[in-house]
Amino acid sequence: MFSDIKFNKEVPVYIQIKDYIKEMILGGMLQSGEKLPSTREMSSIMKVSRNTIIYAYEFLEDEGFICIKKGKGAFVCEIHVEMQEKWNVNWKTLINDYARASESLDIVKHEAKWKKGMISFKSIAPDENLFDVEEFKKAFLNRMSIEGEKILNYGYAQGYRPLINYLLKYMKNKGVNIRGKDILITNGFTEGFDIILSSLTNTNDKVLCENPTHNTAIKIMKLHGLTIEGVDMDADGINIKKLQEKLEKDKFALSYFIPSYHNPTGIVMSPEKRVKLYKLLKKYNIPIIEDGFNEELRYTGAHVAPIAALCGEGNSVIYIGSFSKVLFPGIRIGWILGDENIIGYLESVKRSRNIHTSFLDQAVFYDYLQGGNFEKYIKKARKVYKEKYEFAIECAKKYISTGQVMGEGGLHIFIKIDGINARKLLDRCYDKGVIFTPGDIFYTDNKGADTFRLGFSRVNKNEIQIGFQIIGDEVSNLIRETMEEKNV
Amino acid sequence: MFSDIKFNKEVPVYIQIKDYIKEMILGGMLQSGEKLPSTREMSSIMKVSRNTIIYAYEFLEDEGFICIKKGKGAFVCEIHVEMQEKWNVNWKTLINDYARASESLDIVKHEAKWKKGMISFKSIAPDENLFDVEEFKKAFLNRMSIEGEKILNYGYAQGYRPLINYLLKYMKNKGVNIRGKDILITNGFTEGFDIILSSLTNTNDKVLCENPTHNTAIKIMKLHGLTIEGVDMDADGINIKKLQEKLEKDKFALSYFIPSYHNPTGIVMSPEKRVKLYKLLKKYNIPIIEDGFNEELRYTGAHVAPIAALCGEGNSVIYIGSFSKVLFPGIRIGWILGDENIIGYLESVKRSRNIHTSFLDQAVFYDYLQGGNFEKYIKKARKVYKEKYEFAIECAKKYISTGQVMGEGGLHIFIKIDGINARKLLDRCYDKGVIFTPGDIFYTDNKGADTFRLGFSRVNKNEIQIGFQIIGDEVSNLIRETMEEKNV
Repeated sequence: MFSDIKFNKEVPVYIQIKDYIKEMILGGMLQSGEKLPSTREMSSIMKVSRNTIIYAYEFLEDEGFICIKKGKGAFVCEIHVEMQEKWNVNWKTLINDYARASESLDIVKHEAKWKKGMISFKSIAPDENLFDVEEFKKAFLNRMSIEGEKILNYGYAQGYRPLINYLLKYMKNKGVNIRGKDILITNGFTEGFDIILSSLTNTNDKVLCENPTHNTAIKIMKLHGLTIEGVDMDADGINIKKLQEKLEKDKFALSYFIPSYHNPTGIVMSPEKRVKLYKLLKKYNIPIIEDGFNEELRYTGAHVAPIAALCGEGNSVIYIGSFSKVLFPGIRIGWILGDENIIGYLESVKRSRNIHTSFLDQAVFYDYLQGGNFEKYIKKARKVYKEKYEFAIECAKKYISTGQVMGEGGLHIFIKIDGINARKLLDRCYDKGVIFTPGDIFYTDNKGADTFRLGFSRVNKNEIQIGFQIIGDEVSNLIRETMEEKNV
Repeated sequence: MFSDIKFNKEVPVYIQIKDYIKEMILGGMLQSGEKLPSTREMSSIMKVSRNTIIYAYEFLEDEGFICIKKGKGAFVCEIHVEMQEKWNVNWKTLINDYARASESLDIVKHEAKWKKGMISFKSIAPDENLFDVEEFKKAFLNRMSIEGEKILNYGYAQGYRPLINYLLKYMKNKGVNIRGKDILITNGFTEGFDIILSSLTNTNDKVLCENPTHNTAIKIMKLHGLTIEGVDMDADGINIKKLQEKLEKDKFALSYFIPSYHNPTGIVMSPEKRVKLYKLLKKYNIPIIEDGFNEELRYTGAHVAPIAALCGEGNSVIYIGSFSKVLFPGIRIGWILGDENIIGYLESVKRSRNIHTSFLDQAVFYDYLQGGNFEKYIKKARKVYKEKYEFAIECAKKYISTGQVMGEGGLHIFIKIDGINARKLLDRCYDKGVIFTPGDIFYTDNKGADTFRLGFSRVNKNEIQIGFQIIGDEVSNLIRETMEEKNV
């Protein structure tokens, strides 16, 4: 007894001893009233200093596991862990429809998984090697010295005021009129969209969006019991005529669009189309939720204002912003910009969900941004991703030449090959060590079986070349086999 | 023009210049095609180095606001901010019942607000002055050097694996059998409770709890459309007989309890009562949600196991843990411990809500905890809060002697004074610069008008003395006036 303790290097020794003895007490190996070896004896059994044992005993006493009687020694307390009969609940029958749907729509759980050594085109997360960790550390230390310990205590549901002000100015610099508007900080786009739908829609409401569109948005809309009406896209984005037809026919609670480097197609909606879209929705008075996704990576030679900039002092567009596809997605910071009255309600919903987004993260992020790091970073990131994008397009044209290649930049391209089944293709490529995202998950109407998305942000040029070549070969094989089957 | 720019010290000068020119372009003061002063001219107008101007122009070009033509100069691009007609949506009519209820149940918005100079007994947040910021900084730097930039990229919905493992062991050390169980990291208790109710209840389900109980829990249950059945409490916690009566009469989907330093009463449920409660709920097969609130601050001389420890390998108790009432609430980290199958569903719900809790915060928190800082901190915190608690009890008995004082430690006490209206009392005290939480917000049945909660974690002894004296005086005044009214 006691001499079999094994120490690791990560945790202070006195804590390991404390936990070890606690475990013996809880496990019944040490009984109530039993005397522990003296600190001197224990120190020689465990081969650690006597002070370490004294320290461990002190903590054990603090936590109510032993009583130290002066001159008599340390005794195990009466511990009330009277194990009761095991009681099992059949939780599976208690899980409700919402949780079941969350699970079944959870692509992380149900799509093919990356394995070590594979080339993955699944991710459209930023390449972390571009992150400037040293500047981030500086921002942390600087902000800690300014804010001190209070930044680790509770903050406010709306967010960290300096960050809100920074983002208001940031949005103003995109051409958005911020008068009468305000910002709520959220845990990324996902929470922003979820809070908006939670607050502004009711089950069975109809929502307009592009078809295909962001898979997470589809998931959240489905979880809210909404009817999703996707509008087909042309090579330059949403088909305005089809949009108009839908608007004439039906009533919609909201509309949701991704105007820049649209997910999954990579299409940037032109300024002219943005105006047409805006005017049409205005005519039918259907509020717009604009997803600012990837806007930061845009490099077209001329500034293109978000849709939110078109309504001036009007309040009809709610903009969801996030740097997660560009910078530090792990800290989960996004924002909602909208009418200040709406933000007031969304703030209360946010408070009822999780009180607020980490104030530490918000403060450090603010410090990082306002020091000018973001501008420098984005300059570098745009250059790197642009190069990769151009190389990906080149390889796609060379190796996957039968496909229609979409995407004008950003972090991914989208491919459609008539007559091919992308899931069959994925199975084949998976065996060859290449993985990508089948396009059907982005469609609102079970279409898209012949499409797939290739994210290139976290692969290098070599991987793009090899991976695209493998995909191209398997496309050819599949097409040849289909032809042969037909001829038989 | 240009010479009226005013620089602040916080933001790099080239960014201020960039934003200033951007604003002029977006505001129409600089028109498309207009030529900007040369970098040399601008440098003399703005009184900054020419390099700064060159840098600012480069960024303006990157962002698509100006075009630099070699040998000719910098020209404003054609900017597409065609302001459209203002379009206002009447959002107030679109806000749904859930958001309206969130707002109306939001006590931050509707309860009396603290003003500078006031003595506030509202808060039961930890005293940030106890936080060991230097150790936290060390944990940050250490974890950053171990994890590097990848900790800033996307993580996993379930949480940061080392933290999950740490907490599993932590729960095991409380006597909980963790076999077949798992942990989901959440943004604090609030998110944990919300995710559980979202996944396991349906509108109009009945939920059992103590009466009074945690106000945020009541809010979340109401927002889920649940019927709340509160069971009255005695001086030593929930009345088991009344609990049994309710169980005999009705079917309940879930039950929710706060066994340690109960909010708001401060009562610790005895080990015997925990066993009785457990057995009774087992008999009726009503799963238990245990709120581990303030458990870490318990100092009774003997370890008291959480209810979750009573069911051994059974899965009938879901435990929600959080250190937020003790340590770093601003980073919003809590956890749910439960049956591993349930955790799988809750993980998908978490992913659909906000993908995951900040990985940076989880990693730093883990580093802080595993280094043994938590044990040292909690030792110090227990001592400080115990002293304050004892002083608060002393003052309550002295100055508010007509009241029944509840609370056995933790961060607050609870007072009931027959015949007094706590909101009237609050109004009076507010005028005298003292603020506290009226007790009615904790009741599930509109009772508690004669109760109030006094949090003492963030006030000093002097404030406790002065504040309690003021409350006591106003209690006496109110009672005297009521007597006089009756006599008139």
